[in-house]
Amino acid sequence: ATSTSNAVFSQNKVLTIDTMNPNVKNVEYAVRGPIVQRAVQIEKELREGVKKPFTEVIKANIGDAHAMGQQPITFFRQVLALCSYPELLKDNMFPEDAKSRARRILQACGGSSLGAYSASQGIDCVRQDVARYIERRDGGVPCDPDNVYLTSGASDGIVTMLKLLVCGEGASKTGVMISIPQYPLYSAALAELGAVQVNYYLNEEKCWSMDLSELERSLAEARKHCNPKVLCIINPGNPTGQVQSRQCIEDVIRFAAKEHLFLMADEVYQDNVYAEGCQFHSFKKVLFELGPQYSNTVELVSFHSTSKCYMGECGFRGGYMEVINMDPEVKAQLIKLVSVRLCPAVPGQALMDLVVNSPQPGEPSYTTFMKERTTTLSLLAEKAKLTEEILNTVPGITCNPVQGAMYSFPNISLPQKAIKEAKALGQAPDMFYCMKMLEETGICLVPGSGFGQKDGTYHFRMTILPPTDKLKLLLAKVKEFHQKFTRQYS
Amino acid sequence: ATSTSNAVFSQNKVLTIDTMNPNVKNVEYAVRGPIVQRAVQIEKELREGVKKPFTEVIKANIGDAHAMGQQPITFFRQVLALCSYPELLKDNMFPEDAKSRARRILQACGGSSLGAYSASQGIDCVRQDVARYIERRDGGVPCDPDNVYLTSGASDGIVTMLKLLVCGEGASKTGVMISIPQYPLYSAALAELGAVQVNYYLNEEKCWSMDLSELERSLAEARKHCNPKVLCIINPGNPTGQVQSRQCIEDVIRFAAKEHLFLMADEVYQDNVYAEGCQFHSFKKVLFELGPQYSNTVELVSFHSTSKCYMGECGFRGGYMEVINMDPEVKAQLIKLVSVRLCPAVPGQALMDLVVNSPQPGEPSYTTFMKERTTTLSLLAEKAKLTEEILNTVPGITCNPVQGAMYSFPNISLPQKAIKEAKALGQAPDMFYCMKMLEETGICLVPGSGFGQKDGTYHFRMTILPPTDKLKLLLAKVKEFHQKFTRQYS
Repeated sequence: ATSTSNAVFSQNKVLTIDTMNPNVKNVEYAVRGPIVQRAVQIEKELREGVKKPFTEVIKANIGDAHAMGQQPITFFRQVLALCSYPELLKDNMFPEDAKSRARRILQACGGSSLGAYSASQGIDCVRQDVARYIERRDGGVPCDPDNVYLTSGASDGIVTMLKLLVCGEGASKTGVMISIPQYPLYSAALAELGAVQVNYYLNEEKCWSMDLSELERSLAEARKHCNPKVLCIINPGNPTGQVQSRQCIEDVIRFAAKEHLFLMADEVYQDNVYAEGCQFHSFKKVLFELGPQYSNTVELVSFHSTSKCYMGECGFRGGYMEVINMDPEVKAQLIKLVSVRLCPAVPGQALMDLVVNSPQPGEPSYTTFMKERTTTLSLLAEKAKLTEEILNTVPGITCNPVQGAMYSFPNISLPQKAIKEAKALGQAPDMFYCMKMLEETGICLVPGSGFGQKDGTYHFRMTILPPTDKLKLLLAKVKEFHQKFTRQYS
Repeated sequence: ATSTSNAVFSQNKVLTIDTMNPNVKNVEYAVRGPIVQRAVQIEKELREGVKKPFTEVIKANIGDAHAMGQQPITFFRQVLALCSYPELLKDNMFPEDAKSRARRILQACGGSSLGAYSASQGIDCVRQDVARYIERRDGGVPCDPDNVYLTSGASDGIVTMLKLLVCGEGASKTGVMISIPQYPLYSAALAELGAVQVNYYLNEEKCWSMDLSELERSLAEARKHCNPKVLCIINPGNPTGQVQSRQCIEDVIRFAAKEHLFLMADEVYQDNVYAEGCQFHSFKKVLFELGPQYSNTVELVSFHSTSKCYMGECGFRGGYMEVINMDPEVKAQLIKLVSVRLCPAVPGQALMDLVVNSPQPGEPSYTTFMKERTTTLSLLAEKAKLTEEILNTVPGITCNPVQGAMYSFPNISLPQKAIKEAKALGQAPDMFYCMKMLEETGICLVPGSGFGQKDGTYHFRMTILPPTDKLKLLLAKVKEFHQKFTRQYS
């Protein structure tokens, strides 16, 4: 007989904050952190009729274009609808190029269905299309589809690569160099994997550029206590919105070659370049331009995604990574590793295909596609400029140009009294500031401390994604709040 | 000037098989392992005109229903098309209930677009629908939507939970009890996390049931060298196709309560029950029937997915998990952890919603939906029976009834000579057998060694998914091959 005495029922749970994986406890992710949770609560309070000094929460915390009203690209969604419900292929309402794209994707799917698993590395024809896209983008530098892995957004690829790279204990533990400020996926993944986060600081005075001397300092420092093997770059920058120059990229590659570092280039904003004189240079193209000594040796992985650029399709979790010079034995391990999770979601793979194989001149959808694409990118460029200009009119806020990506990361001066009060509350001063802004204005930003920043400096990250009118309103409110806050604590 | 001497170019790669994460090296995943890679090669050879003793590869290695010709549920795909391209809502070709489901899902999405990120835990209204589904399934046992987390397929949820649970080093390292034979996602995830895999053997003689005495043996053994905290169950079983009795589930829950184990119930085949007298009992329902002593204390997580059952939508990577009695502090950590990956793919969330909120009597799509669902499930039941019957006619093959799920896992007698030859080649004997079968017949199965089995026993896993005619052909070929193989090595 089974025991039914009370004694068997433990008062303690198996899984508690004290017994759980401590690496997970160390994870932080500010973009969806406490401030966003409070924003969601406030929205609920507003719906329930709670009186606030504002009527809506404006979320500028996350690069979520569609949530901010950006419209999807018609062609992409037509093809996705056709793939989802192929009966529509019989309908006359869809243009021929949408139908032929859908047929091509379906033919490459098991049982001609988005519902079949794909190869774990991704659908063959999608990887081929990605390879051709990369070749066009890089002026003919060859790309082997075997080096292309489809992913669930760029995050998935980044975590997968770090998982391969991170090992060791104590002084031989893998160190991973990341820019500060950084996108907190990196610090979160490193915490989870128990790797050593090695910070190098971007130069705010020079528009968040990378300094070779700072890379050298950071690496030398790290070598004292861990085994730095990886250098991560985000270009165009998140949260800082800079676009690295060709020279800078060349320097970084030479540095990686010299110091024997594996390069991870997060290039998800490759189409988001707005500033006059700025241009996106892929790490791969520059690597090949440096000649075979570099292009045959330096290990590089580059990430792209369906979530940003002009399409902003975050919800589909589409993405790819291209690996260069990866050891063939390790590639076999990578394929094995991704096969455990079966495959990236197939609708996201289909969408990735459309991004790299968009309508071409002469095809029926070309004109509409180009119009939608150009409009979205022009609007973003306009909002990038607007954000910089208005923020720089606020005394105590200094903002670098938003050269690319989707974010402004202005420097904010906080009065000593505010810093003291925040510290008394155990809060980062810019968290204190952003939380107050949220409560008083309904604007949801992310404090700079969530991305990392030089000690004693304070920032926030805001997206440039709200519709122009709402963005202007938001910026006016930020200005008003900052002035009030400064007066209050001076 | 930057150094350009040859000296800077290391001949060694940063990332090699020797420097990579050893945990990843230890990962194995047979369902997409060497045999499947060879099958893909053979398909390519056939296309290139290489002569083989067969004209097509029949893949019975993976539960991929659509790839095997199963048709998607019309209603699900209509709603997905409407959500992908909402212009279609204006069209008259779609039934009203499909349109209203699509509108409801879109309203719950940021910017009314599948392209926006959702909450990391999943779209609110989808979690509410999941909760209502669970309540209906479990005869009214309450379900709080806050305990429901949407996932990218069940695999994602399982790995996430294990990530929370696994920690410690040496003798205090977390042990996770898994059934042998097991679905190799478990062993792969445990290898990756560096946890201790604790095997308990299913009783093949009693139709792969769970024995309490075996659980006790396994646990006592494990306690000598690790800290066993988790007990995983797959019901209905993968790869073994059994459906656990209510009594068995009750015993397991009492055992977990007594031994202070966290229960993980993989219930993705909950609608795949075929055998007379068998019925699916959810762990949650049985837990609540055991009374508050149990239902208020035992920690349980249950996983479900869009990939199996009657819908077989693997490619969408939809799923959910429900956590019961989880410590609130740990729940906060779980939400933080999933937020790093932003959200599960939104089309998969939409599909999960449709599965738990399918057409109801009186709605225009109800009749067609029920017909499609019933047809698919009846066909699977028929094929389960057929597989068992035919395999049991082969001397040297013994096959338990396929009570549920999608697989048969027959025991195969291998001649000593074959076992010797395999071992000389460094191969598991059933891998040797399956590889030979692939080369000679084009049939792709997975060797039992990929799932684990009692020493000295051999098996293979085959899915029952091929269309009836093809399944008959496959079984005839298996029979013929087994007889030939036995003769050859006797």
